[in-house]
Formats: sequence, structure tokens, C-alpha cells
Amino acid sequence: MNRIITVSREFGSGGREIGRRLAEKMGIAYYDQEIIAELIKRTDFAEEYIRHMDEKNPIPLLPITTARTFGLPANNGLEQNLKFYMQESKVIREFAEKSDCVIVGRCADYMLREMNPVRLFVYADMESRIARCRKKNKDAETLNDRELRQKIISVDKKRARYYQFYANQVWGEKENYDLCINTSRFSEIKAIIPGLEKLVK
Amino acid sequence: MNRIITVSREFGSGGREIGRRLAEKMGIAYYDQEIIAELIKRTDFAEEYIRHMDEKNPIPLLPITTARTFGLPANNGLEQNLKFYMQESKVIREFAEKSDCVIVGRCADYMLREMNPVRLFVYADMESRIARCRKKNKDAETLNDRELRQKIISVDKKRARYYQFYANQVWGEKENYDLCINTSRFSEIKAIIPGLEKLVK
Repeated sequence: MNRIITVSREFGSGGREIGRRLAEKMGIAYYDQEIIAELIKRTDFAEEYIRHMDEKNPIPLLPITTARTFGLPANNGLEQNLKFYMQESKVIREFAEKSDCVIVGRCADYMLREMNPVRLFVYADMESRIARCRKKNKDAETLNDRELRQKIISVDKKRARYYQFYANQVWGEKENYDLCINTSRFSEIKAIIPGLEKLVK
Repeated sequence: MNRIITVSREFGSGGREIGRRLAEKMGIAYYDQEIIAELIKRTDFAEEYIRHMDEKNPIPLLPITTARTFGLPANNGLEQNLKFYMQESKVIREFAEKSDCVIVGRCADYMLREMNPVRLFVYADMESRIARCRKKNKDAETLNDRELRQKIISVDKKRARYYQFYANQVWGEKENYDLCINTSRFSEIKAIIPGLEKLVK
């Protein structure tokens, strides 16, 4: 069976960077935006809808006005969401079956549970996450600290709801992961990759 | 400043073994029962009292009958506990100031917070912990699974109360640690030491 590493991460914690660098170091595939690209390619969901739905709260789903924007009847939101989840799940499973890989976000730890992935959770305190967003994220330039904090909280809330809905587990609860890394301490991501590689091998 | 690694651990998770092996691998000091031995040597607390108090619930403290056994007035429990904590804290601080080291349990992560320790938390699911206790702990032989489970829960409850009381933080909450390791996944402790060493260096 392939060696699968899933990376769940708080927004601004550097989890994506850990995933990318780890895959690079191990010489294995890395899937993050690639999942979205594949969904765009193979499903008839509109690209905007896919981006709107990705790791977002599945319920109470699209408000009527948003649904109309996407040309969907307002009351079939749940069905639509489940269809989206099934498609995303299928893409992720195919990636995982192809070769060893690192997969970021999207409930992959739960979706692939019978493949026994090593499940990482990356987190950090708010101060470090704000600092990291300022350093890495261009969008952050237009926001003051209070707004950035709000954004971080809001993205995480959506991820938590998505995870709760599909995995029926609490997002970020350490019992659902094999290794939880606080990057407030390990701020230099590059430095922790060699140790991490040894641990997950 | 010395490199300090603190290991908090759920009972039966293998945290003590991780601490011991990590110290061995890094060639640095290891403190666990050594803290008790030092307290016995340098304080006028009775050895039984020290063993009774170690990492146990500090409040509501000794019931009257227990206090009498140790020859203490029943109503000065809190004062006595604080005195014990101060002494333990002093021993731990002296150890930490002497050289690089690994310290297991006893709120050391909090006691030494201004020395910026790398704070590990080791945990595992109940099934793995029962299995590990059966393998490692002679006392476990006399207990059936239900009793062993009760013991595990009871020891952890005491550790949690001790931590909550002295550190005013939630024991096991990942935000209070730099790295949380689920040994249900990494059951072969020996195998994870090289990676861990690299991470905490």
C-alpha cells in the first residue's frame, strides 16, 4: 500500500509549506490545488462553484442568492454538496492509489482512513499566524491585524465545519491525528523537514 | 541556555520510554524518578508523603484520615501542597540549570516556561495503552481490562488536575505543547527516536 501523508492545518500555520517541502524532500507527489484543478477538469461543476465549495461549510449551504448565482435551485444544496464531496473524494482516492503522496486538507485523513495515512495536524498561536500571513500572503497587505485575525478565525471555522460534517469528528482534536506540530515553536519550516521525514517514513 | 525537553504523557502511552530513549540518544540528562529521589534526600517530607503527592491532585487535598497518617493537621493541606510544589519546582529548576536534559511529567513544561523548553505531549488511544500496560507494567497482571482502563483514567485525571491547578492550563490541550505524538500509530518507540531527535534539536 502507498505511503500516504495527510496534512490538516490551521490557516496561517505553515501547514501547506510543511506538506510541500516534505513531499519535495521525500520525492513523492504533492496534492493541494491539484485537487481543485482535477475537479475543474473532470466534473461539470463551474470553476467558481468548486472554488466556493472547497473546504467550506457544507450546511446550511448556499444561501438562496448565492445558489441563484450558480444557477442552482436553492433547496437542493445538501444534495449538491454531497455530490461535490463524492467527486472530491473520488479524485483524492485516485491520487492516493496512484503513488506515495502528501495531501493537504480536504478531509483526506478521514476519506483515506482505510489506507492508514500518517495524519499530521499543523497549528500555531494567533500571533505567529498573523506574522506568517503578513510574510506569505499578499491579500494580507490590505487587512489590519484585527481584520486578518477575523479572516483566520473565519477560514478555520469553515474548515472545522466541513470536517465535522463529513468526518463527524472534531477538527484539530489531537486524537484524530498521529502528529500535531505547533509551528509557533518551529517557525523555520525548512529546519523541521528532515526530522519530520524520518518520523513519517 | 540549556536545551530542555519536557515530556508530558498519558498513562500507558509510552511517554516515559520516549523521554528516556531520547535523552539516551542525545546523550543528555534524564529526570523522572530522580526528581523524587532528590526530594526524599533534601526535604523533610516523609518518603511516603512524597510518593503520595507526586503528580497527584492537589485539591481538595488529603482527606483527614490520610493527613493523620502523615501526621499533618488536616486543615493545612493546601499550604502543605504548595510547599511540596515549591520544593519540587526548585529541584526541577536546578536540574534544568545544570545541563541539557529531558524531564518527564510534573508540570516541568510550565515550571520552566521562561527557559523555553521543547514541550512534548505523548498520547494514545485506550486500546494501545491497555496493550502497552500489559506489556510493560507488572502491576497490570492482576487487573482485568475494565480495571486497567479504570486505572488509566484515574491516573490521567490526577495528572490533569495537578496540571490545571499549578499551571492553570488544560493538560493535554495541544496549544500548550510544541509537538504531540500519538503512539497508537508509532507503537515502536525505538523507531521514532531518530526523527524526534532531529525535530527537537
